Amino acid sequence: MERSACLLFRCTDRVGIIAELVLFFRDSNVSISRFEEYTESRYFFARLEWRGAHPWMTTEDFDEAFQAVADTFDDVSFRAHFFEQPQKLGLFSSKEPHTLIEAVNKCEAGDYPNTEICFLIANSKEVERHAQRYGIPFYYVKTFKDPQRHEPVQLEIIRRHSPDVIGLARYMKVLTKEFIDQAGCQIVNIHHSFLPSFVGARPYEMAYERGVKLIGATSHFVIPALDQGPIIEQGVIRVEPGDSVERMKRTGRDVEKKVFASALGKTLQHKTIMYDNKTIVFN
Amino acid sequence: MERSACLLFRCTDRVGIIAELVLFFRDSNVSISRFEEYTESRYFFARLEWRGAHPWMTTEDFDEAFQAVADTFDDVSFRAHFFEQPQKLGLFSSKEPHTLIEAVNKCEAGDYPNTEICFLIANSKEVERHAQRYGIPFYYVKTFKDPQRHEPVQLEIIRRHSPDVIGLARYMKVLTKEFIDQAGCQIVNIHHSFLPSFVGARPYEMAYERGVKLIGATSHFVIPALDQGPIIEQGVIRVEPGDSVERMKRTGRDVEKKVFASALGKTLQHKTIMYDNKTIVFN
Amino acid sequence: MERSACLLFRCTDRVGIIAELVLFFRDSNVSISRFEEYTESRYFFARLEWRGAHPWMTTEDFDEAFQAVADTFDDVSFRAHFFEQPQKLGLFSSKEPHTLIEAVNKCEAGDYPNTEICFLIANSKEVERHAQRYGIPFYYVKTFKDPQRHEPVQLEIIRRHSPDVIGLARYMKVLTKEFIDQAGCQIVNIHHSFLPSFVGARPYEMAYERGVKLIGATSHFVIPALDQGPIIEQGVIRVEPGDSVERMKRTGRDVEKKVFASALGKTLQHKTIMYDNKTIVFN
Amino acid sequence: MERSACLLFRCTDRVGIIAELVLFFRDSNVSISRFEEYTESRYFFARLEWRGAHPWMTTEDFDEAFQAVADTFDDVSFRAHFFEQPQKLGLFSSKEPHTLIEAVNKCEAGDYPNTEICFLIANSKEVERHAQRYGIPFYYVKTFKDPQRHEPVQLEIIRRHSPDVIGLARYMKVLTKEFIDQAGCQIVNIHHSFLPSFVGARPYEMAYERGVKLIGATSHFVIPALDQGPIIEQGVIRVEPGDSVERMKRTGRDVEKKVFASALGKTLQHKTIMYDNKTIVFN
Repeated sequence: MERSACLLFRCTDRVGIIAELVLFFRDSNVSISRFEEYTESRYFFARLEWRGAHPWMTTEDFDEAFQAVADTFDDVSFRAHFFEQPQKLGLFSSKEPHTLIEAVNKCEAGDYPNTEICFLIANSKEVERHAQRYGIPFYYVKTFKDPQRHEPVQLEIIRRHSPDVIGLARYMKVLTKEFIDQAGCQIVNIHHSFLPSFVGARPYEMAYERGVKLIGATSHFVIPALDQGPIIEQGVIRVEPGDSVERMKRTGRDVEKKVFASALGKTLQHKTIMYDNKTIVFN
Repeated sequence: MERSACLLFRCTDRVGIIAELVLFFRDSNVSISRFEEYTESRYFFARLEWRGAHPWMTTEDFDEAFQAVADTFDDVSFRAHFFEQPQKLGLFSSKEPHTLIEAVNKCEAGDYPNTEICFLIANSKEVERHAQRYGIPFYYVKTFKDPQRHEPVQLEIIRRHSPDVIGLARYMKVLTKEFIDQAGCQIVNIHHSFLPSFVGARPYEMAYERGVKLIGATSHFVIPALDQGPIIEQGVIRVEPGDSVERMKRTGRDVEKKVFASALGKTLQHKTIMYDNKTIVFN
Repeated sequence: MERSACLLFRCTDRVGIIAELVLFFRDSNVSISRFEEYTESRYFFARLEWRGAHPWMTTEDFDEAFQAVADTFDDVSFRAHFFEQPQKLGLFSSKEPHTLIEAVNKCEAGDYPNTEICFLIANSKEVERHAQRYGIPFYYVKTFKDPQRHEPVQLEIIRRHSPDVIGLARYMKVLTKEFIDQAGCQIVNIHHSFLPSFVGARPYEMAYERGVKLIGATSHFVIPALDQGPIIEQGVIRVEPGDSVERMKRTGRDVEKKVFASALGKTLQHKTIMYDNKTIVFN
Repeated sequence: MERSACLLFRCTDRVGIIAELVLFFRDSNVSISRFEEYTESRYFFARLEWRGAHPWMTTEDFDEAFQAVADTFDDVSFRAHFFEQPQKLGLFSSKEPHTLIEAVNKCEAGDYPNTEICFLIANSKEVERHAQRYGIPFYYVKTFKDPQRHEPVQLEIIRRHSPDVIGLARYMKVLTKEFIDQAGCQIVNIHHSFLPSFVGARPYEMAYERGVKLIGATSHFVIPALDQGPIIEQGVIRVEPGDSVERMKRTGRDVEKKVFASALGKTLQHKTIMYDNKTIVFN
């Protein structure tokens, strides 16, 4: 793996930001190979990629060097990622396996850069065979109405594996604020509706009841409020006349798979920035 | 125009319906040229089309002949349409002209069968030029907070023209139950969001605020509850990173146009059946 | 599995067909639960489904009873399928596993009715692990420039397993007319372009060269002429500015998977009729 | 209209381009408000936008100032556009009006920046009413098998109006190399198929014959070879079972409209760069 890296950057918009970012890299004798920027609301967002040698041994080195530039902006936040550093993806699921299988296969096909799946935690033993097929460490953790009974067990597993990203592959349980804080990494969920429509446990039933002509899926970062987190990706598919809830669920799986796998991919490629409970997703 | 017609039919589902419908037409010496049926929830729905001569001079004749068959089903409702009978489409709009223009051009292009636009009622004089360009009778009716001040004027115009269908081309005012009842025809609205998300007056602003990745449009039959009517058609379009509300509105217009024109077309082609605040839309 | 079945029917279009089909079933005391018909070109096509008891023990029984009706039509062809009869799906692949994995998982998820995968034949040992994971009999058959060197081996395996449908999951070899004839079942291929564009071995390279803005995939029944068979399903996905051939291939996989799985599903659900090197695909 | 502008830039890719472009603007005391770049094949492409005051009175001034930087790159080409400068769009059509109407309405709605339609040239008098409705100068120019009989007349009209862009709204005639050279501006065509499939005069008939499941439209810059020019935008729409050629044409119009209007918009917003008979289209 050659040395190459990217920077995700956000600050309050003002004139001159692009020039200052570019100059920092030029002054460090680093050539930017990819530069993508957006202005949205009061913010400026950028993602810069560079390939080849660079003067920073670790992301901490980079942070230290970049801090002087960062200090000239308002409300700034940034993160650098060195692509040579392997990433660990942890998965949660309940018994519906389709989004899980899609993520695992994308990972095996090399669609997620330099990524290894470090665990599957499930509250159903039915999905264990999928973990076994791919040699993924599997943990059955029964879930309860009271999250205090299962979250500590899950957090212990998380601590042992230190995932960089957690994907909730139709895990279908609300996470507490404490869990999210202590997990200490980005958590990507797939919700089986076109949010903000049909929040909660039975979105296909609700979509059927309302008589919508398209059903959808939404992948978002998890926050304590149910299905309210910053949206990363959405997709829809057409309902045919006469479709039952059962057929809608079956059809909907294909959208769920695609949206979840895409959102995980964007996250693992460091192409998402969160702000104001929204996301900027780079190309 | 040759004699040809269609029947829209709904009843409680049970075995044997298809055979009985088909036999009625055979016994009347009428050949069905198109038969489309769906079973959904507890209902059976069908649309039958026939071409060429038939024994019924008027739809009343048909109703009389068919009633005996209809009586053998539960919770039955049906409507026949003779295609040689011209249809009148009335349009309402406020100042945003894009859905209006689309409907007018579809009509001129012959996409709506045997249909003439009989009036445009608008609460903005800005759209008058569009009516003039196409020779459509134009009525400027100012609207007020209190619908009693404008609905009687509108109803008077409706009575004069007797439209078969009314299209609300971004008219953006709530209709009272009394108005809907007295208008006496199907009323098709276009709402500029993917319902049930973002009901009300500022859907693009709400979509922007929530950070959705697709925006949509929904065409539905109008009932007194705002944006709650049976959905006829929906569409979505992708939001690009950095899109402002303004750009979302601009992009969204293309979906609104397409969805509205399609829903009007399905209605004017007698391809929609309402039930349980939903619709079956035939192909 | 309850007794239920479907009939796929095609004949030269004329008046009265619908009534005659419906009457045959009524006279057999069988209630049609689903009736879907299309008229296209000079043909009439229908698919009828019935549930519950029926007087025919085997499809041969049905054929015998139905033949008298069939004889009253021109250029007629029909096939009945009893859903209680299990189906066998055989798969071919080379080393690209994504369409194979999708088909296998759809099958395991119950998306293909009453279907079992009876073998995977591949000219690459790399995909063997996918067969093993799902307990599918795997046959490595090396392929050569001269099909006489491998087709007899493959046909021997086919004869042993008698598949009802064969799916070519990116198998990427031309089949001879003799092979197709002797295989004796429908063969579904996935081609990684939007046919008829980019026939042959390097469609993504050709799409890249031509600068198209959407890339696609096409699933079709196999005939001896390369990529010329009747199309069952097609899909497309957007190319982003700056996409390399490599990225197009990666993006394209998702469409290939979806289109192949859908075409296999339609075939296994007896929802396709071939005519004039085209297909009618039922809903 | 405030002073603002954009630069379209292309050169052979190498390290350091981004920094040099950005520095040029910084050294000119101009703040870049939007920077979008792509690397594709051996090329680097960028579009830069700036808002507010700048030191260049004319694009010639800019060219002169920028030339020194440009000279440091290989195989460079660039064009600056000052947004305060009005643009003129000329339209050609035959009798099918739908793409024409869409373009005209987009222009009136302000979707094309600072743009006026300067003429409509048609070989059918049927579309004259559309020009009249919008007050667009209309020229009826009969076309012949021998382009020498009509192209000189058309070129004379073009010279009189000096359009910045010409849109062929289903004009359906091949243009000679001489015409294209002498027109002296970008010419955007809409072809009613998903190119490279179905080149030529009867694409819907060919699509019908081949039995494709999606039909499409392609907008491209015109070059002398028929339907071979660099593609700007493409779209597709689903074919329903039983669709006749006539219905495909009707359905296809909506895609043609959308694709043509979008391609015109991208061209008029200076968001396209041609290279190797392909285009880069900026967001």
